[in-house]
Amino acid sequence: MNDTICALATPQGGAISIVRISGEKAIEYTSQIFTPRKGLPLAERKSHTAVFGDISVTPGELLDEVLVTIMRAPHTYTGEDVVEISCHASSYITQQILLALFNLGARQADAGEFTMRAFLNGKMDLSRAEAVADLISSTSKASHRLAMNQLKGDFSNELAGLRDKLLKLTTLMELELDFSEEDVEFADRSELTRLCDDIDATMTRLTDSFAVGNAVKNGVPVAIVGETNAGKSTLLNALLREERAIVSDISGTTRDTIEGLMNIGGTTFRFVDTAGVRDTQDVVERIGIERALEQLKKSSIALWLVDPAADYTQMEITAKKILPGCKDKKLAILINKSDTIRGERVAEIMEWGKTLVAECGEDIVWSENDIWAISARLRSNLDRLEEFLVRSAALPSISSGDVVVTNVRHYEALTRALKEIKEVKHSLELGLSGDLVSEHLRAAIHHLGEIVGEVTNDEVLGNIFANFCIGK
Amino acid sequence: MNDTICALATPQGGAISIVRISGEKAIEYTSQIFTPRKGLPLAERKSHTAVFGDISVTPGELLDEVLVTIMRAPHTYTGEDVVEISCHASSYITQQILLALFNLGARQADAGEFTMRAFLNGKMDLSRAEAVADLISSTSKASHRLAMNQLKGDFSNELAGLRDKLLKLTTLMELELDFSEEDVEFADRSELTRLCDDIDATMTRLTDSFAVGNAVKNGVPVAIVGETNAGKSTLLNALLREERAIVSDISGTTRDTIEGLMNIGGTTFRFVDTAGVRDTQDVVERIGIERALEQLKKSSIALWLVDPAADYTQMEITAKKILPGCKDKKLAILINKSDTIRGERVAEIMEWGKTLVAECGEDIVWSENDIWAISARLRSNLDRLEEFLVRSAALPSISSGDVVVTNVRHYEALTRALKEIKEVKHSLELGLSGDLVSEHLRAAIHHLGEIVGEVTNDEVLGNIFANFCIGK
Repeated sequence: MNDTICALATPQGGAISIVRISGEKAIEYTSQIFTPRKGLPLAERKSHTAVFGDISVTPGELLDEVLVTIMRAPHTYTGEDVVEISCHASSYITQQILLALFNLGARQADAGEFTMRAFLNGKMDLSRAEAVADLISSTSKASHRLAMNQLKGDFSNELAGLRDKLLKLTTLMELELDFSEEDVEFADRSELTRLCDDIDATMTRLTDSFAVGNAVKNGVPVAIVGETNAGKSTLLNALLREERAIVSDISGTTRDTIEGLMNIGGTTFRFVDTAGVRDTQDVVERIGIERALEQLKKSSIALWLVDPAADYTQMEITAKKILPGCKDKKLAILINKSDTIRGERVAEIMEWGKTLVAECGEDIVWSENDIWAISARLRSNLDRLEEFLVRSAALPSISSGDVVVTNVRHYEALTRALKEIKEVKHSLELGLSGDLVSEHLRAAIHHLGEIVGEVTNDEVLGNIFANFCIGK
Repeated sequence: MNDTICALATPQGGAISIVRISGEKAIEYTSQIFTPRKGLPLAERKSHTAVFGDISVTPGELLDEVLVTIMRAPHTYTGEDVVEISCHASSYITQQILLALFNLGARQADAGEFTMRAFLNGKMDLSRAEAVADLISSTSKASHRLAMNQLKGDFSNELAGLRDKLLKLTTLMELELDFSEEDVEFADRSELTRLCDDIDATMTRLTDSFAVGNAVKNGVPVAIVGETNAGKSTLLNALLREERAIVSDISGTTRDTIEGLMNIGGTTFRFVDTAGVRDTQDVVERIGIERALEQLKKSSIALWLVDPAADYTQMEITAKKILPGCKDKKLAILINKSDTIRGERVAEIMEWGKTLVAECGEDIVWSENDIWAISARLRSNLDRLEEFLVRSAALPSISSGDVVVTNVRHYEALTRALKEIKEVKHSLELGLSGDLVSEHLRAAIHHLGEIVGEVTNDEVLGNIFANFCIGK
């Protein structure tokens, strides 16, 4: 934490590159290689000023004409002295500047290290720091709004509110504990239960919001399943409008799952092309099929692609593997290769499919309109599929101020906290003693503290910031 | 020129993106979407200050927390008011900021338009403006130094010196012209000739430097020539260490020329893989062969790849086409596929090759060591080839302050100016009258003026700045 770090904050290319430096010696190091074109030396400049001048890393040789912005602690991003060098976007120039800074004693910043320092210096809590990475990777209005709400601290405030309530609960409980020998019940247990219910409701709302948050941030998961050679890869490519998956006529080409993101009607979908489902002795292929069924379980929409050339025995074997995995999912059955078959065959398969779903007894979100013929290769009837997807996703629109959990780490911590609260409620119902109850309360507070970083450790921080880009 | 332009100055990705705005209303437009977190509004801030605050493009909705740097005319890059918004590098955020600026009345900047404004506002001459693009694309110490010398104005100063001398010459000539009826020779013609020789020498030095300048900037051109199926594409790929060219066993696969840049030992080489040379009736292939021989003429190093499986009749037909094109070039003859033949065969071909080059009568830069066997496929003996290339390129090292012409436009203007000076010298030798001589002098001055942009037009400017990136 005492050293000075630097990194390129922009990608190679473009017109301008930014070298970012943070730490005690940021201004001192920069002064060694930078001379203002006129006026005071850098070290005597005020905070938040931009200075035009020359960078030389070898005496007497001009490397670049640059604009240097200096910002003095504590009113900076990291809370330390920060310098940003805005230079011409040449890979040679940026490399030379970084090398010179390394030689002076600065260190290459790790991924996310600027933001980690901001967190460690108390400029933002951990959930807000994580929102910075989400903000940078946001590509749609919805994902941007989720990240911005989190960055503004809406989520942190909600957690702070929860924490206050939990602390109040704890205080009441522990007060009771202190006087337990006197057999005085200070805390009105029904009051405690009400507070507990309140906390439970808020936590449940937050954990429930993760399904939406995750769908917005990572895309609504859509599994493309079906027999081998039904054309799943062709459908994925048609949906993504690119040659993403390897398409061939050999059965079992797709052994691993292949994913692709596509924005349709404002919603981001994460399409997962899976291995073809069939009875096989091939060990590798069986692993592929198991993965396919796992992917199906993780998805919220299932596209079951039927090869009309297959016979019913084969199709029914496939159906028996697929349908149980479609529980609670929106399902569309797509009869592919419509260009190669007669209308009567399509009608026949549609009847077969409707009967099959009706009889399978699983709780599948499905209507009789959700089976139709397409040609993935010719892209026919895909507009109907896109319309089905948008309708099935039906994500709630997110307003400025809505608190939605998007981060799996937060979700898990909340889930753990919620479990403790359920324990508290249960203990209260059983009339257990205060010390047992307050143990669960402390655990719940601990888990909430993990989210904002009140309780943390190097490993957790390392994992979080490793997902950031260098220079942020 | 009166409108306000804006553009993203950094590529998508990274941690930070910079939106750059230039023009009369740059600060006004920014103020409409940006609110400082504290202190004075943007419009009341001093020049060259950085202000932290919030961007909102929709009322009440925070788009991003950004750092805005304002710089007021005339001490800015473009000479106009300039604002740089440093935001989180999300494609959604940058897109929203640009859209908001467009809605306020700003216009998307054309490629290089910021630099063009700098030129039009007299912040830099045209050759220095062009150096900005070269600086950005510089990737090596040598190409960086060339661009920086030009940006610093070394070339402009050299041209200014030339221009002064030309003007002096013109004045002397025109003085003579005014008094010509009185048959007075004011200008001492031998003095004029000396001045002329001086100008000629400087211009010749500059035009000669283009060979080096071009090699540094665009790479030393190396042509890979030889029979069809000799393995030229495989060699290119081996040199570039990637699958650049389509390699196949079918003769005539490479119909068009394929290029690749590679830095070897600090020198950039531009390898050109050409169509196989042979007698053919195929019209398309013959065009390919003509192009191959043209590429050979443009190169400074020739790598002639020999297929040891070919017979001598065939090899001699190829040799007769290739060797005349190797005049004044460094040549290496590479016997490819060394792994498939016996040592005696290699020795035999080596003798054959040495005799052939010795007898061809062309002025080829060649020693008897410059023929050896390689295997492009197995990358064997390629280190010897790399060593040959570095030795053959032998570019002079460029010092800070060296003036080297790197730009084909400058080279052409200089060549035209030099031609006029030769005419001046010739006229002086013939004792022609002053008005004829001064016409050529004026033409020379005109051509020099084109380089720095004293004489220019929209089309020329359009062509120059179209090669810039957006945002510069």
